[in-house]
Amino acid sequence: MSLQSNSDSQQFGAPLSHAQTWISNDVLKLENGGRLEQITVCYETWGVLNQEGNNAVLICHALSGDSHVVRHDASDSPGWWEIIVGPGKPIDTDRYFVICSNLLGGCRGTTGPNFENPEIGQPYGADFPVVTVRDMVEVQRRLVVRLGISRLHSVVGGSLGGLQVLTWAIDHQEMVASSIVLAASARLSSQGIAFDVVGRNAIRHDPHFAGGQYYDGPAPEGGLALARMLAHITYLSDELMRAKFDPTRLQPRAVDSAFESTFSVGSYLAHQGDRFVERFDANSYVTLSTAMDLFDLGDNAEELARSLAPSTCRWLFVSFSSDWLYPASASRELVDALVAQSKSVSSCEIDSPAGHDSFLLAETMERGGRMIRAFLDNDDAINAPIYEKNPSRIDEPTSIFYSQRLDYEMILCLMPKDASVVDLGSGNGELLSILRDRGYAPLLGVEGDQGQVVCCIERGLSVIHADLDQGLSAIPDQSFEVALLSQTLQSIVDVAGVLDEVVRIGQRAIVSFPNFAHAPMRKMFLQEGRLPKEEGLYAYDWHDTPNRRFPSILDFQELCEKRRIRILEAIYFNSSTGEEIVDDPNLNADVAVVALSRASS
Amino acid sequence: MSLQSNSDSQQFGAPLSHAQTWISNDVLKLENGGRLEQITVCYETWGVLNQEGNNAVLICHALSGDSHVVRHDASDSPGWWEIIVGPGKPIDTDRYFVICSNLLGGCRGTTGPNFENPEIGQPYGADFPVVTVRDMVEVQRRLVVRLGISRLHSVVGGSLGGLQVLTWAIDHQEMVASSIVLAASARLSSQGIAFDVVGRNAIRHDPHFAGGQYYDGPAPEGGLALARMLAHITYLSDELMRAKFDPTRLQPRAVDSAFESTFSVGSYLAHQGDRFVERFDANSYVTLSTAMDLFDLGDNAEELARSLAPSTCRWLFVSFSSDWLYPASASRELVDALVAQSKSVSSCEIDSPAGHDSFLLAETMERGGRMIRAFLDNDDAINAPIYEKNPSRIDEPTSIFYSQRLDYEMILCLMPKDASVVDLGSGNGELLSILRDRGYAPLLGVEGDQGQVVCCIERGLSVIHADLDQGLSAIPDQSFEVALLSQTLQSIVDVAGVLDEVVRIGQRAIVSFPNFAHAPMRKMFLQEGRLPKEEGLYAYDWHDTPNRRFPSILDFQELCEKRRIRILEAIYFNSSTGEEIVDDPNLNADVAVVALSRASS
Repeated sequence: MSLQSNSDSQQFGAPLSHAQTWISNDVLKLENGGRLEQITVCYETWGVLNQEGNNAVLICHALSGDSHVVRHDASDSPGWWEIIVGPGKPIDTDRYFVICSNLLGGCRGTTGPNFENPEIGQPYGADFPVVTVRDMVEVQRRLVVRLGISRLHSVVGGSLGGLQVLTWAIDHQEMVASSIVLAASARLSSQGIAFDVVGRNAIRHDPHFAGGQYYDGPAPEGGLALARMLAHITYLSDELMRAKFDPTRLQPRAVDSAFESTFSVGSYLAHQGDRFVERFDANSYVTLSTAMDLFDLGDNAEELARSLAPSTCRWLFVSFSSDWLYPASASRELVDALVAQSKSVSSCEIDSPAGHDSFLLAETMERGGRMIRAFLDNDDAINAPIYEKNPSRIDEPTSIFYSQRLDYEMILCLMPKDASVVDLGSGNGELLSILRDRGYAPLLGVEGDQGQVVCCIERGLSVIHADLDQGLSAIPDQSFEVALLSQTLQSIVDVAGVLDEVVRIGQRAIVSFPNFAHAPMRKMFLQEGRLPKEEGLYAYDWHDTPNRRFPSILDFQELCEKRRIRILEAIYFNSSTGEEIVDDPNLNADVAVVALSRASS
Repeated sequence: MSLQSNSDSQQFGAPLSHAQTWISNDVLKLENGGRLEQITVCYETWGVLNQEGNNAVLICHALSGDSHVVRHDASDSPGWWEIIVGPGKPIDTDRYFVICSNLLGGCRGTTGPNFENPEIGQPYGADFPVVTVRDMVEVQRRLVVRLGISRLHSVVGGSLGGLQVLTWAIDHQEMVASSIVLAASARLSSQGIAFDVVGRNAIRHDPHFAGGQYYDGPAPEGGLALARMLAHITYLSDELMRAKFDPTRLQPRAVDSAFESTFSVGSYLAHQGDRFVERFDANSYVTLSTAMDLFDLGDNAEELARSLAPSTCRWLFVSFSSDWLYPASASRELVDALVAQSKSVSSCEIDSPAGHDSFLLAETMERGGRMIRAFLDNDDAINAPIYEKNPSRIDEPTSIFYSQRLDYEMILCLMPKDASVVDLGSGNGELLSILRDRGYAPLLGVEGDQGQVVCCIERGLSVIHADLDQGLSAIPDQSFEVALLSQTLQSIVDVAGVLDEVVRIGQRAIVSFPNFAHAPMRKMFLQEGRLPKEEGLYAYDWHDTPNRRFPSILDFQELCEKRRIRILEAIYFNSSTGEEIVDDPNLNADVAVVALSRASS
């Protein structure tokens, strides 16, 4: 491997003391036209590649990041993702061989606008060609091959890093076993592009920009600082800024800056802008932010499906509730497009006030880290899955239903052997785990509660974070042999709509629910004249029950008939005795488990 | 009145051909220090001041607006609020004498940075003193007095104009009969200030800024255009930009601009920036946006209450769902602070995709215009209220309850004479109108549905737009003699919490609800084993009922006891016969009307 110090380029920021450099002499034909004859790649690695060569994890950095993910030793300067990567950390460098290379077009040692343009013998400057995320990934691919790796255990990244992960999984599917995409989506919103446009205009309008050929003189620091200030606002959230700056609105920090510092938020931005120009090149900023804006996997479900079709990896998507640059809703579009193609995908939207930058912060990545660790470790290809060893990690109680296990048994009675199953309202994954143990596959959970989603992923299950009232439309018709809806009916707003969906996505739907018309309930209502209560799911007072619906067996049957849904089989039982009820179940059973399918017209 | 053409200042934008100019020779001592010896005020008027001098409406313009609200005649150029102001329009110039003056610190004829600084004989430039909204309003006050008006029928404005309205009502309460505040709040968010800071930094960083003394040379047009582009993004909404630019993301308009136009949104912003610099002065932009950022009525409920305490006018607040610069939630804080002081206030959040600029657009101001018209016209002080003449404007059906009128009668039986009343879930204001006709006052409605809120305001009622599950905390303890909750209990999530609130805010609470345990319901459930149904509020199927709660009289009584709420009186009746039920009402009555109060401990 040829190593050489990168003497061609101007230095931006602190030196990356543990970085290595490799030069690729193959011509790189760029996606948007143009070519680069030679590429210098600057990168860092941690851990050891195993004999099988299958424990490599590639980390892709974001716009202002670099290859220095974490410190290499105690004396090293800290990296940008110390919370996630390192010995014993979620991406465990004792287990995995971790690689991160500086981006093509950046200013941290890999070929970029500050490199010499061999045709004219001076830096490219603004003449550096337009590079896309695909071009960046191609450079990374060359490095990975050079390092002797034919298949990556995982590719991981947030923001612009997430766009690279998506591209890896699409362009080089044979090299990617799994992908983790944080705070990213199929394309930036027009609002997001608009902010970038203003930032780039500020750089180009700087009096020192000089058409990008400023390396011999003063840099366009004012313009770059303006772009950074503006972008920085989009990395935070309204609520975070409120908490950070509102209490001291007119008490700016003392900053030595040419920028306005009347308001505390102004002094903060001035500081951010001034610090950024010490370590970043304006031409690189233009190059990389343009690549972000050009990234586009499509505008609608069909285009996304087409873009993602080649991918074969396992996927994990993590988004953040207050991220308005790459919002959770946009991440969900990618998840939906993968679900629509029956790809292996999990997703979680983490509740966080910290905006887009949440993927970088310890306080918002506790759950994210747990999911990343479980997703990487629970993989048959690399080692025996370890989920069974981690029962203690399951931190949320299961369903409120007091005899869930009995319910499960009845459900199993109605299940075809070894079927593929989607569990709607999968909770902490208990039922799916039982099904996995009994050989059912593939399995998918759909769950609306964030904590339960984390539990499912820690159990090594595929689960998507979605509300049943909205989240099922992406699942294709009849794509699972069984669609389960266990003890969830009573909490659904649009019951008829969800029932239509379960018989659409499952060849067989199995629905269990508590029977509101159970004899003791009727008696209570008749005699006492109050909303009936019973142990289990109906154990609530009328004024604060979480139940939205009160289904009886008869009501349910009638609704099925109205919606042209056929009842194939049914088990009605008494959950306290475990007895099956044959005689007038609407009166005598407290739980119903029913197998359904769409009646053919 | 001295009129003179304003020859001192450089011209920005098209001439205001119908503008008049008046010079105030009283020294203006500025709020943040400094003084102006003489103020030139440039303004326009429409309509005629009546004999009583009580039909004047002052319109306050926003940052980039001016005095030219509407055209004066067919040959005149259109103004910025043609949709709202003019003959027969919501602010009817056949009825009202309408005034708008250009802002202090602006660049459209009123004293600003482009005026000569008498001390140095050249334009103020960046030495123009910091002016606040309060200073702007003081200049307007002088003009209004000069025009012979001692009390304004209304002050109206959106955005920065709304901040002026707030200031008028607080600083000059004796001169303001009513205030209409659109798309404004007590203070800009830290995020909003941050965007303004970046914009001002872009202006000051422009190579032509020259410390603000650029009037003899080229103007800092690049920097001003950048500031405008950035601000423009905050005036739109994410969803609007998506609709406008996503379909043609990479098909920019052909614009002749020095700014980037790779993306369609970029070409649009370039156009906006380039056009803006033709009509606006960079120093004015800095001055006015700083005034916006400095405006601050307080950070919490106590501070807002203190700020708004002096006001005596009737208030109307209009906000827009997608406005993220002055969001509806921030407008609500002002409304809450006024409600907390029992001031006369109405509010409506209009559903709109168009962001902050919604107050300027025909498609989003149809309802806004109706409210403004009704709010201005339905005022005893100026004329007999006209609400009774407009029954056709009531465009939404009343409650779903089929015998609401009977319910009303029973409620009236339990009402103390001439009481003050808050109606929680006031619908289209039918019950409040009946109460008004019978002499009850003051009256306030609280309603969660936008269309119903508009109806209430068209009926000349005070109503605040809020969800009962969240919106009652601002109403002070025992501030109404009666708090009504009519046929609303069954749709409330937190029943106990709302009940606690009604007995807190009302000396007497009157609650009516349908009795779920009515005999036919019990019988149906016992015999048929399905969720009971009955004409009226329980006429829904189990799977799609909008009801969240199923209260019986007994259940309700028990809950009152648990929450230490005393039942003072009750009427139980059969709504089909109108008969009062004395014998076992929980079995025999289908409706309950109950008067409650907090049991003293």
